[in-house]
Amino acid sequence: MTAPHDAFYMAQAISLAKKGRYTTDPNPRVGCVLVRDDTVIGAGWHVKAGQGHAEIEALKNVPDAKGATAYVTLEPCSHQGRTPPCCDALIKAGIARVVAAMQDPNPQVSGSGLEKLKAAGIEVSCGVLQEDAMALNRGFIKRMTQNRPFVRSKLAMSLDGRTAMASGESKWITGAEARADVHRLRAESSAILTGIGTVLADDPALNARVDVDVLQPIRVVLDTELNMPVTAQMVKLPGRSLILTCAEDQQKQQTLQQAGFEVYRLPGKNGRLDLHAVMDFLGRQQINELLVEAGFVLNGALLAEGLVDEYVIYMAPCILGDQGRGLFNLPGLQQMADKEQLKLRDVRQIGQDLKLTYTPL
Amino acid sequence: MTAPHDAFYMAQAISLAKKGRYTTDPNPRVGCVLVRDDTVIGAGWHVKAGQGHAEIEALKNVPDAKGATAYVTLEPCSHQGRTPPCCDALIKAGIARVVAAMQDPNPQVSGSGLEKLKAAGIEVSCGVLQEDAMALNRGFIKRMTQNRPFVRSKLAMSLDGRTAMASGESKWITGAEARADVHRLRAESSAILTGIGTVLADDPALNARVDVDVLQPIRVVLDTELNMPVTAQMVKLPGRSLILTCAEDQQKQQTLQQAGFEVYRLPGKNGRLDLHAVMDFLGRQQINELLVEAGFVLNGALLAEGLVDEYVIYMAPCILGDQGRGLFNLPGLQQMADKEQLKLRDVRQIGQDLKLTYTPL
Repeated sequence: MTAPHDAFYMAQAISLAKKGRYTTDPNPRVGCVLVRDDTVIGAGWHVKAGQGHAEIEALKNVPDAKGATAYVTLEPCSHQGRTPPCCDALIKAGIARVVAAMQDPNPQVSGSGLEKLKAAGIEVSCGVLQEDAMALNRGFIKRMTQNRPFVRSKLAMSLDGRTAMASGESKWITGAEARADVHRLRAESSAILTGIGTVLADDPALNARVDVDVLQPIRVVLDTELNMPVTAQMVKLPGRSLILTCAEDQQKQQTLQQAGFEVYRLPGKNGRLDLHAVMDFLGRQQINELLVEAGFVLNGALLAEGLVDEYVIYMAPCILGDQGRGLFNLPGLQQMADKEQLKLRDVRQIGQDLKLTYTPL
Repeated sequence: MTAPHDAFYMAQAISLAKKGRYTTDPNPRVGCVLVRDDTVIGAGWHVKAGQGHAEIEALKNVPDAKGATAYVTLEPCSHQGRTPPCCDALIKAGIARVVAAMQDPNPQVSGSGLEKLKAAGIEVSCGVLQEDAMALNRGFIKRMTQNRPFVRSKLAMSLDGRTAMASGESKWITGAEARADVHRLRAESSAILTGIGTVLADDPALNARVDVDVLQPIRVVLDTELNMPVTAQMVKLPGRSLILTCAEDQQKQQTLQQAGFEVYRLPGKNGRLDLHAVMDFLGRQQINELLVEAGFVLNGALLAEGLVDEYVIYMAPCILGDQGRGLFNLPGLQQMADKEQLKLRDVRQIGQDLKLTYTPL
């Protein structure tokens, strides 16, 4: 049973949840609104792992929540984690009704929180604004259900589909507004993936340069043969820098570890890192959302393996000509019938550039 | 002096003018509305060269236009052409006021029509909705002022900037709706320009397949060495097919002429046709709007020479990979600083594809 204003209050809870989009990793973004007699008496959101869940934050400054309805964007937890279970707190506070946008995506615990509330005599509804709530936590949901991160590849290109000059020169194709937007994408991401080729060419920082509090994304470099220079600027920045490799050279590993890198050996495939093994590894590292910022070789390989969930493409109003580098190295694609079909999800203008969002069909 | 409703009635005249967009070549698209006492008493538009101008069509079924205001999207003509001058007809009908959206773009006659009307005691205003009126006749205006056609290049590409597979296979990148839109672009064009490479690869018809009356665009093929096959399908279709060449081979010329082609010899430059000479020639052929449907070689050369006024790009939601053919062959473009900068003018979705309009800065 849903009530007339359920969507209205759930929308507020979702807005609150979004406030955590740069900081909750590896936890999901969750918001909560407490309502009694059509009045909001409490509100909160999850800010950071280890700190209070949204329900606890919402209850915190409410002296008496008896008989209220709790709107929460994700099923309240029923298990003891770093913090006590939210179900117990809601029951103890005398909440009369709980409206959840979606169940816990972890199939092992999904529904158990709602059952516990029901068993305590609380009225329970689930599914209000479910799609919006799911969009908030695509990474967390994918990791809970498939043990892998949600993979978004960001590409910046000219109108004629070039990401760099033949020389590798790529600064700058897009404008300042689009580049600032990329930093927000980075801030929302749990990790950024690139290839050693990009590191050797550009020495990127791969950090999120935004003027709000942000949990810096983990940097992940695929470096099959351990060619990472110890002088790379990323490792001097706060946060973790991971190298994934197939190489067995213990001394190189140690040198890089001393420089500050974490080095992991993963299975290879045809002389390169096995990208499926990479995704499984990143899932185990609790990466919810992975942002790929790579060149045409890694992007082509990820595409060919069907590992990308979303493309975000910034297209500048300029032409670089056919000597420039393309987006996807796809040596196997020779016939029109084999083209990779996507679906356009969003178009918007950012400064002078277009921001295009596509997903696989 | 303009009056409160001038823009309102001029907008109607512009709508009428648009009805001639597939048929008036080489004349401009013109519409006319006659208004008295805030009532439209007559309306007309120019349909076809040799038939009545918009003013004459508007006056045709009005028994008495005395004291009316004539709204016309282009300055009425004062010279005897294939039809008598419109100024005389307006004066004779007793029109009290003439509102024109823009002057005649031909600098030699510009203003003389308005002067003639003023001399006859008619009140004259000019410039109402001028930009909209100019947009209707960009080709005519450019030919009148620069003796060259307005050049629009149409490109169909994948998301990663590819127009064909490495093999040349290009059917089809875009969807049926986008391809239908291209036929409307063709119908609006005076001529379609392509290169012999495209003819040899695709044997295109280059006609406008729309279900309204249309003056078929003239087909123009750049064929430096006269490699056009007499079996090309375009020459079997109604309308003119022109070959522009540098070759002096009289026998080949005659064979092609017998097959139905018109063959013209033009100056060359570095072993290819001089593209500036081509544009001058097309201006002399009274081509107002030229649609380029060509491969990456001709498109690259036109871009490098600064000869394109507008790009219309259909972008399909698919990926063809970096083995595919690009949009622009630009061997001279090696540094980011030399990139060709454009301005985004319009974005819209056509079926599953995006239609993007750009102009040079």
